Amino acid sequence: MPGFRSSSTGVSLICRAMPLTLLKLSCPDRVGLMARVTGFIAAHGGSLCEVNQFTDTRAGWFFARMAIDSKTLRVPLSELRVDFAPVGAELGARWTIRRETERVRVVLMVSRLGHCLVDLLWRWRAEELNCDIVGVISNHEEFRATVEREGLPFHHIAMPPEGKMEALARVEHLWGELGADLIVLARYMQVIPPDICERWMGRIVNIHHSFLPAFAGANPYRQAWERGVKIIGATCHYVTAELDAGPIIEQEVVRVEHFHTPEDLLRMGRDAERQALSRGVRWHTSDRVLLHGARVVVFRD
Amino acid sequence: MPGFRSSSTGVSLICRAMPLTLLKLSCPDRVGLMARVTGFIAAHGGSLCEVNQFTDTRAGWFFARMAIDSKTLRVPLSELRVDFAPVGAELGARWTIRRETERVRVVLMVSRLGHCLVDLLWRWRAEELNCDIVGVISNHEEFRATVEREGLPFHHIAMPPEGKMEALARVEHLWGELGADLIVLARYMQVIPPDICERWMGRIVNIHHSFLPAFAGANPYRQAWERGVKIIGATCHYVTAELDAGPIIEQEVVRVEHFHTPEDLLRMGRDAERQALSRGVRWHTSDRVLLHGARVVVFRD
Amino acid sequence: MPGFRSSSTGVSLICRAMPLTLLKLSCPDRVGLMARVTGFIAAHGGSLCEVNQFTDTRAGWFFARMAIDSKTLRVPLSELRVDFAPVGAELGARWTIRRETERVRVVLMVSRLGHCLVDLLWRWRAEELNCDIVGVISNHEEFRATVEREGLPFHHIAMPPEGKMEALARVEHLWGELGADLIVLARYMQVIPPDICERWMGRIVNIHHSFLPAFAGANPYRQAWERGVKIIGATCHYVTAELDAGPIIEQEVVRVEHFHTPEDLLRMGRDAERQALSRGVRWHTSDRVLLHGARVVVFRD
Amino acid sequence: MPGFRSSSTGVSLICRAMPLTLLKLSCPDRVGLMARVTGFIAAHGGSLCEVNQFTDTRAGWFFARMAIDSKTLRVPLSELRVDFAPVGAELGARWTIRRETERVRVVLMVSRLGHCLVDLLWRWRAEELNCDIVGVISNHEEFRATVEREGLPFHHIAMPPEGKMEALARVEHLWGELGADLIVLARYMQVIPPDICERWMGRIVNIHHSFLPAFAGANPYRQAWERGVKIIGATCHYVTAELDAGPIIEQEVVRVEHFHTPEDLLRMGRDAERQALSRGVRWHTSDRVLLHGARVVVFRD
Repeated sequence: MPGFRSSSTGVSLICRAMPLTLLKLSCPDRVGLMARVTGFIAAHGGSLCEVNQFTDTRAGWFFARMAIDSKTLRVPLSELRVDFAPVGAELGARWTIRRETERVRVVLMVSRLGHCLVDLLWRWRAEELNCDIVGVISNHEEFRATVEREGLPFHHIAMPPEGKMEALARVEHLWGELGADLIVLARYMQVIPPDICERWMGRIVNIHHSFLPAFAGANPYRQAWERGVKIIGATCHYVTAELDAGPIIEQEVVRVEHFHTPEDLLRMGRDAERQALSRGVRWHTSDRVLLHGARVVVFRD
Repeated sequence: MPGFRSSSTGVSLICRAMPLTLLKLSCPDRVGLMARVTGFIAAHGGSLCEVNQFTDTRAGWFFARMAIDSKTLRVPLSELRVDFAPVGAELGARWTIRRETERVRVVLMVSRLGHCLVDLLWRWRAEELNCDIVGVISNHEEFRATVEREGLPFHHIAMPPEGKMEALARVEHLWGELGADLIVLARYMQVIPPDICERWMGRIVNIHHSFLPAFAGANPYRQAWERGVKIIGATCHYVTAELDAGPIIEQEVVRVEHFHTPEDLLRMGRDAERQALSRGVRWHTSDRVLLHGARVVVFRD
Repeated sequence: MPGFRSSSTGVSLICRAMPLTLLKLSCPDRVGLMARVTGFIAAHGGSLCEVNQFTDTRAGWFFARMAIDSKTLRVPLSELRVDFAPVGAELGARWTIRRETERVRVVLMVSRLGHCLVDLLWRWRAEELNCDIVGVISNHEEFRATVEREGLPFHHIAMPPEGKMEALARVEHLWGELGADLIVLARYMQVIPPDICERWMGRIVNIHHSFLPAFAGANPYRQAWERGVKIIGATCHYVTAELDAGPIIEQEVVRVEHFHTPEDLLRMGRDAERQALSRGVRWHTSDRVLLHGARVVVFRD
Repeated sequence: MPGFRSSSTGVSLICRAMPLTLLKLSCPDRVGLMARVTGFIAAHGGSLCEVNQFTDTRAGWFFARMAIDSKTLRVPLSELRVDFAPVGAELGARWTIRRETERVRVVLMVSRLGHCLVDLLWRWRAEELNCDIVGVISNHEEFRATVEREGLPFHHIAMPPEGKMEALARVEHLWGELGADLIVLARYMQVIPPDICERWMGRIVNIHHSFLPAFAGANPYRQAWERGVKIIGATCHYVTAELDAGPIIEQEVVRVEHFHTPEDLLRMGRDAERQALSRGVRWHTSDRVLLHGARVVVFRD
């Protein structure tokens, strides 16, 4: 639907001449790791376009992301995975190999504030997000038209005060049905129960409208105004059972002054929220984010 | 159409309890100016909510903006203007007095890149821009649906290479018909002829996709990449006869690194463009921008 | 000692042609305040160079700072103060009037980390701080030479664990002897007792090495590293009885990544500390900071 | 001289448990490069602490920096270099291998503005710069005391208008005598002749007090003020024969407003200059900067 696409964003697709295969890997550190992994890729003819590596010397842990020019690989992807399996096992690694064109499947969750939703939809159309949005779920009806005119399915699941747990169970079930790889809470405003957080660990991204760990919880802009801070922020993080305490992927800040009201902070903070969330999603869907305990390795682009 | 509005943005309107009357003034500096002007307002019962003042001691020029609580004024607006006229004349001032609710009428101009257009439409719906958008003009058809679904008139005026001057004359005529107070070139990509620039001096705002005065002219992102700069930017400025040389209202920057391609710069720069342009428009339409020669006084909010 | 000065900083003094008289004022808001105050100044012949004003409409409080060209005033400073006294009383205002050349007297407090001390000394020599430094007090001897070579008195007051209260009483006594108007804790690392905080309310400035209210207390850089934040900061605030909870004057931030160690954060944070503290001191000593309850009005320059 | 050191900076040295060996390399890109180089390191027992890599796919060029834990290497440094020579030759690479403890030898050049000099001296003492400062050269005497009290040799070489070429020849001769690896123009204000630029290509770093390529040449802050920009900057770049046109290593910016005078810009710009220059020096002296034509690869830390 290219006509529709351009009418929605006005951004012509930039043709990538180079289809990429992405290897993401983390494992205990040891001598010869880079040689082992890059040697494997070279042995399969792979030309490396981008290599990111980080060794956490305190934790003794190794993190890497390698982008390989798919055209140079001598074997199909399935075979590459089969060949790499014993290497990964030998290294005790968590790893994935995928073609960039096998898009991450994303479900957006939204409540009554639409700025992050609209921003993500626009960036998705503009090819900034490297993902397929497979659906939008909301506890309200406001954004049905906004979503449906993009050709995306909109699912309304109400959150009655006395039936939240059942409703959230339906939400989780729907994530499964939609084949979601990543859930994005784009100002969803509902607390995800601990058991769902556990099952989806590292696969739910939230935007919190403060510079965490400052002002966790409700009404962070009002809290910030009352404390008289001179800079406000937004935090994109993975959701964990403990509210607003999950591993941080990205943060953005905005300078404020004494004359800004709480309403001004809310307005100015929206820009920070949009940027932090969209970057977090972009990096996750490009296999640039590696989670290790409470900390996150981000190979920014 | 409040339902439509909320479905488009999800932002509920923040009720301003306090309707404002805005006085904007610039004149040669002299002793007693503030006393003269604030005395006039006090004599009419006006309670000041916000006072901004700047004296350019080099140029010997005085600039002020005063926001008055309309409810406290003892006379209607028309009478206030009549009363202020002799004061303004005595001071040799350029001045305006208007109610904030008499919205500035804005026409958006767009070509084939829609990120600024979409952003401005969203912010307008979210009540960030303090204006009425009275129409969108484009030399292409791409954004007709985007504009019309917001309930706004879309005007297509083609720019045939051999008939540009006639087409631009039609554009200017349409500005007049629409009763435009401000023209926003939201990546319009057409050069406005000097005579039109003269007639609309201080009333046409452009976004240039570089940190001016660096990289004026075409393809600034490619120029920036070739020069190897570490920070790119965008510049919101008034349009003058000399290309990309008009008075600057606002600039925004983004840090880049060696691994960013010209395409990455283009993507990252879009965020800077959106922010610089939307702030420039917001400030202009709030009477926060005072032009004096080549320099601009901006009472930011 | 101009030779010494230039050898220390290399910054030639910029002659201000215009000696300024500074009026700082806060009071309950009401109609006609600006007219009353600026009318008073005009009646004394005063030419206003800079006017800053803020009305906190929630609190119903008015804040202003006016910089008057001293040469235009028809009466001496003492008389101006006498004349303004009834106006101030009528308005229920807290106010000060002083010549900018009557420098604020500052005492610096330092412990074992010298980056803020060295930075403040340099900026003071470069005429960035608008104050007289009348002495440096430390609980260690490390910086005696650094201080004394600037021609400043260095006072060592040890902080034995069992005699801290007595030592801090001596410190406070010395502040009085030195005629201090402002105390700057330039990484002093000692907790000031509540009773001293009370007596010096609004006259002790501290730099905390985190983006408050995040990471109050000890080892904020390590706390920040463990939490995995992507931006670290520093906070310049007035000292109150409650640790790290005083009104914030200024904050500065620095972006960090996963590869930065706690030691890197410490290094990078030093730049943020220097900037936030030096700006806070500059603004306080220029009468640009007005304290009202837990919030601070800063008329930045 | 540890007592001196701590009295000067107050920064205790952070003991690095891990002595590093640094490999820096650039060469034409081809399949298997990473495997070849990391395989070589692994074959010598080297444990990699930090790997940075960049492939410029347009230029077909490969850049890498590898930090190896020296204790894990099975051969002495001289032998490692001998062993790597045929690899480097085979790859057509420019490469260096050195221990981090073999410090880069730096000469600072200064004229009459001392803010960058003082800042670099402080950061050097604080172990931020990874270098030995082996001397300071100036065309004025102002900073002799500042330099000599740090225990560093100060060389005065006057620049008489009619004898500049001879004086600059003496300067270059002195660089050789001091065994300089890197020359830092810390606001030196003298134009380096093209032949010297050629001979020291990639080994002279300058700080220009504007956001290049805007405002090259003299008086950039005044130029910036006249143009009315809203953000000013500073640029750290390698010196080439063409003035202010050399490859950019780092840039820093500061937001300004209409009320800032050219003198304010000068003051605020100093902070940007200090930061851009000190980061540029730190990265160069850590082998984090790789020059390729007009562009620079910087593996930031």
